[in-house]
Amino acid sequence: MSSAIASGQPMRVVVWGENVHEQEQQEVRDIYPHGMHGAIKEGIEENLGQRAVVRTATLQDPEHGLTEEVLRDTDVLVWWGHAAHDQVADDVVDRIQRHVLAGMGLLVLHSGHWSKIFGRLMGTTCTLRWRSKDDREIVWTVDPTHPIARGVPHPFIIPAQEMYGEFFDVPAPDELVFLSTFSGGEVFRSGMTYRRGYGRIFYFSPGDQDYPVYHQQEVRRVIANAVEWARTDRPERTSPVLLRYEREDFYNGHGYAGAMSN
Amino acid sequence: MSSAIASGQPMRVVVWGENVHEQEQQEVRDIYPHGMHGAIKEGIEENLGQRAVVRTATLQDPEHGLTEEVLRDTDVLVWWGHAAHDQVADDVVDRIQRHVLAGMGLLVLHSGHWSKIFGRLMGTTCTLRWRSKDDREIVWTVDPTHPIARGVPHPFIIPAQEMYGEFFDVPAPDELVFLSTFSGGEVFRSGMTYRRGYGRIFYFSPGDQDYPVYHQQEVRRVIANAVEWARTDRPERTSPVLLRYEREDFYNGHGYAGAMSN
Amino acid sequence: MSSAIASGQPMRVVVWGENVHEQEQQEVRDIYPHGMHGAIKEGIEENLGQRAVVRTATLQDPEHGLTEEVLRDTDVLVWWGHAAHDQVADDVVDRIQRHVLAGMGLLVLHSGHWSKIFGRLMGTTCTLRWRSKDDREIVWTVDPTHPIARGVPHPFIIPAQEMYGEFFDVPAPDELVFLSTFSGGEVFRSGMTYRRGYGRIFYFSPGDQDYPVYHQQEVRRVIANAVEWARTDRPERTSPVLLRYEREDFYNGHGYAGAMSN
Amino acid sequence: MSSAIASGQPMRVVVWGENVHEQEQQEVRDIYPHGMHGAIKEGIEENLGQRAVVRTATLQDPEHGLTEEVLRDTDVLVWWGHAAHDQVADDVVDRIQRHVLAGMGLLVLHSGHWSKIFGRLMGTTCTLRWRSKDDREIVWTVDPTHPIARGVPHPFIIPAQEMYGEFFDVPAPDELVFLSTFSGGEVFRSGMTYRRGYGRIFYFSPGDQDYPVYHQQEVRRVIANAVEWARTDRPERTSPVLLRYEREDFYNGHGYAGAMSN
Repeated sequence: MSSAIASGQPMRVVVWGENVHEQEQQEVRDIYPHGMHGAIKEGIEENLGQRAVVRTATLQDPEHGLTEEVLRDTDVLVWWGHAAHDQVADDVVDRIQRHVLAGMGLLVLHSGHWSKIFGRLMGTTCTLRWRSKDDREIVWTVDPTHPIARGVPHPFIIPAQEMYGEFFDVPAPDELVFLSTFSGGEVFRSGMTYRRGYGRIFYFSPGDQDYPVYHQQEVRRVIANAVEWARTDRPERTSPVLLRYEREDFYNGHGYAGAMSN
Repeated sequence: MSSAIASGQPMRVVVWGENVHEQEQQEVRDIYPHGMHGAIKEGIEENLGQRAVVRTATLQDPEHGLTEEVLRDTDVLVWWGHAAHDQVADDVVDRIQRHVLAGMGLLVLHSGHWSKIFGRLMGTTCTLRWRSKDDREIVWTVDPTHPIARGVPHPFIIPAQEMYGEFFDVPAPDELVFLSTFSGGEVFRSGMTYRRGYGRIFYFSPGDQDYPVYHQQEVRRVIANAVEWARTDRPERTSPVLLRYEREDFYNGHGYAGAMSN
Repeated sequence: MSSAIASGQPMRVVVWGENVHEQEQQEVRDIYPHGMHGAIKEGIEENLGQRAVVRTATLQDPEHGLTEEVLRDTDVLVWWGHAAHDQVADDVVDRIQRHVLAGMGLLVLHSGHWSKIFGRLMGTTCTLRWRSKDDREIVWTVDPTHPIARGVPHPFIIPAQEMYGEFFDVPAPDELVFLSTFSGGEVFRSGMTYRRGYGRIFYFSPGDQDYPVYHQQEVRRVIANAVEWARTDRPERTSPVLLRYEREDFYNGHGYAGAMSN
Repeated sequence: MSSAIASGQPMRVVVWGENVHEQEQQEVRDIYPHGMHGAIKEGIEENLGQRAVVRTATLQDPEHGLTEEVLRDTDVLVWWGHAAHDQVADDVVDRIQRHVLAGMGLLVLHSGHWSKIFGRLMGTTCTLRWRSKDDREIVWTVDPTHPIARGVPHPFIIPAQEMYGEFFDVPAPDELVFLSTFSGGEVFRSGMTYRRGYGRIFYFSPGDQDYPVYHQQEVRRVIANAVEWARTDRPERTSPVLLRYEREDFYNGHGYAGAMSN
């Protein structure tokens, strides 16, 4: 095996932060003095140490910091957005989708459920019920052997949180890892995996600009586990293609190669 | 129960045909003198009789025959396209997606795997391997209690067919109903179900313009079964929405209602 | 189609009740004067009317009322047990399992999670966390197009209930239909489907001897929907077998026929 | 993290071989001079090197070589049996099942589909169609990011093999990784994962006493990958239990502890 994983190369992670609440609201800046993306980055580094090299990018960067060059060198992209989903340029969304289908891992956090990239990959409205009133959230593991649940207490408690409740309009997940309940009695499928193309996606709902959720140890552990899980080990960054194969030649496709070009 | 299904109302089906091969190629017209959509329509009527009212629409109709009015009165839409996927207007695709997420059933047949609407709902490239060289296709049932497999022989044989092979880049299905093998040794997940929003989707790969597949009894039976399966019984045609719910009020959401509007 | 479903024959349902609490505890008899099985039967009849013929059987009957003759004439068996799981004879459990794998539907209710028959079909411990302290249970639908959820309010509330919580040690379900939350903050996968052999199984957790849950309209609706869903339409009551097939003869297996005989 | 995986301890694997064909048939001994279990062991060592310590055990050993002590020190058990399933003692099967539910990984190979332990964990007949007539088997990957498919060519070809075909009566898998086709046109879900309790199970169909399948590089790679995948990282070897939890005490269950004791 000459793969990146086998050779022990650290994984390359980009945490993307919308970085709007932190700029506009003092109370968010108080909770997240280095930005929400900063706190998420710290949590990954704290858990993965030398196993990961973590960078950040934000909405305000040229091309939102997600150029072709950056994505080509990214094993896993972590996404946090909320107030400015519609300001993410469509061609950057195209690019991210292409990279996910070609093998880049993607973590979508909390309000990222309504981001353009998540909607694209799910095909549904990705809507839900919500309330921001200091609910207590309890996170339960229902897939105890899943690598994303490794070392995560069952259950763990987030003292105050925004409520996200069902019906969450997403496809049935490939794996349902976590369920959350809220003081008000609502429930949410809070940790779910999806494979799309050659890429792996994890949606995780805990986390909000008004609560210090990304400073909490258990949440950081889940995100770090998910980063490791989402990394694939593809030899190259290419997406599936449409090809014609002659009989008895199983390996040399030819003709059409234009995936997603229609 | 005052639902349409309970009250015995026939289901309203629209078979959409691209209708390009039939216009341009005499050999296709010979196989499908009433169009491919015509043959698909006949197969549904043959199996469902009074239980369904079946209409057709084609690419060449104004708005491709799929106006808001038509879709509002459609329980299940059946889709066949191949040569002109890119000629389907984006706003019609938007409309179909909206109706599927709001409860309209959708059957995507064969080369429809690369249609805009299927790509939108899957989020992936929907690419595959192919060869059109008179392979024999054998269709095997792997979910024998599924309503779509009811009365379908295990296996059944299509004497000559285009080969569609793996890897088929779609999400893992909610249910894998059929697998197909081809003389050349390829395999394909040929019958798969997906729930998206309030709608139900079935992809079925047999069927091609160059072979009389839609005249074959077993294929017609599968399509008719799938039409019945895909019909939901929603009281109204609305898609999931994002709403805020106050504590202890589980039924009256308010605030945001803008699904897919970002 | 000459099937039982197509010909409109009513489905034949047996509600099996352990019938121990009702005999021994006055407070249970007060809630369920006709037995718990009696209340469950009433709920099915109330919803399905002429579409079902419902009988009951109990632990105390010879062979627990589940002879070969009875099971052969049963489309769907509904199971409630709690205090006397170990008194169910192993050969009757063998027989039920054989019939399920050969096409009989099975509903397992509440404390039936720990019945011999459920353990056999799941292969796991089927354990969970519990507390009987008047928790309020809220039942949420996460698969809104599922036939078992048809006409069921989202959510619906059971004012007082025993708590069943995760981790529930069962296989990941084929379909997750309902989730329940409890006042204490616990969560449970309360409505799940499983296919096993040619049979369909639904587990539904609401319902307990100490609470009038089986008198509640929404619960009755779910159970009735599930009875309809669990009925398969197999032409005969035979389970899958191991057979040898010569090349090009896809339909006439021979040799070994001894499923489950090793 | 103080886990075995994190601390880099090699995984402890036991390859269990029925060891009957090798003793009784010269032609099998010619293919597998060190026994089938010997060849499987070699393949794992070849791929995992220092990352695994592999032992073997056979039917003929006292307690079939699978005492409580042995299983307690086993991370992953690999199972090959065919001619003598019924000679495996029931109490050993009980013990294996208990260990799987408590976190031991299990690989079931080829004819092991009809072993007692697999039937116990699946709950179904585990029957299939078969023919031993030198079919060519082609193995296709349908879950390309799955760790078990890492480095496995798509497709790979086994020149001569026993045919195993659908319908394979097992539960729908948690993940469908491989599909196989045979020269005769049959298809088989040849690589499937299942979670049961705290354990992970992989079924892989290639491999037979009459063909040198376990000497083939791609097959060895799949088995080695699966061994790594099946290892869980539980802190202790305990299975899920039934426990009562008081309100607001989420961590200290008490009362019943008797999983599987009914």
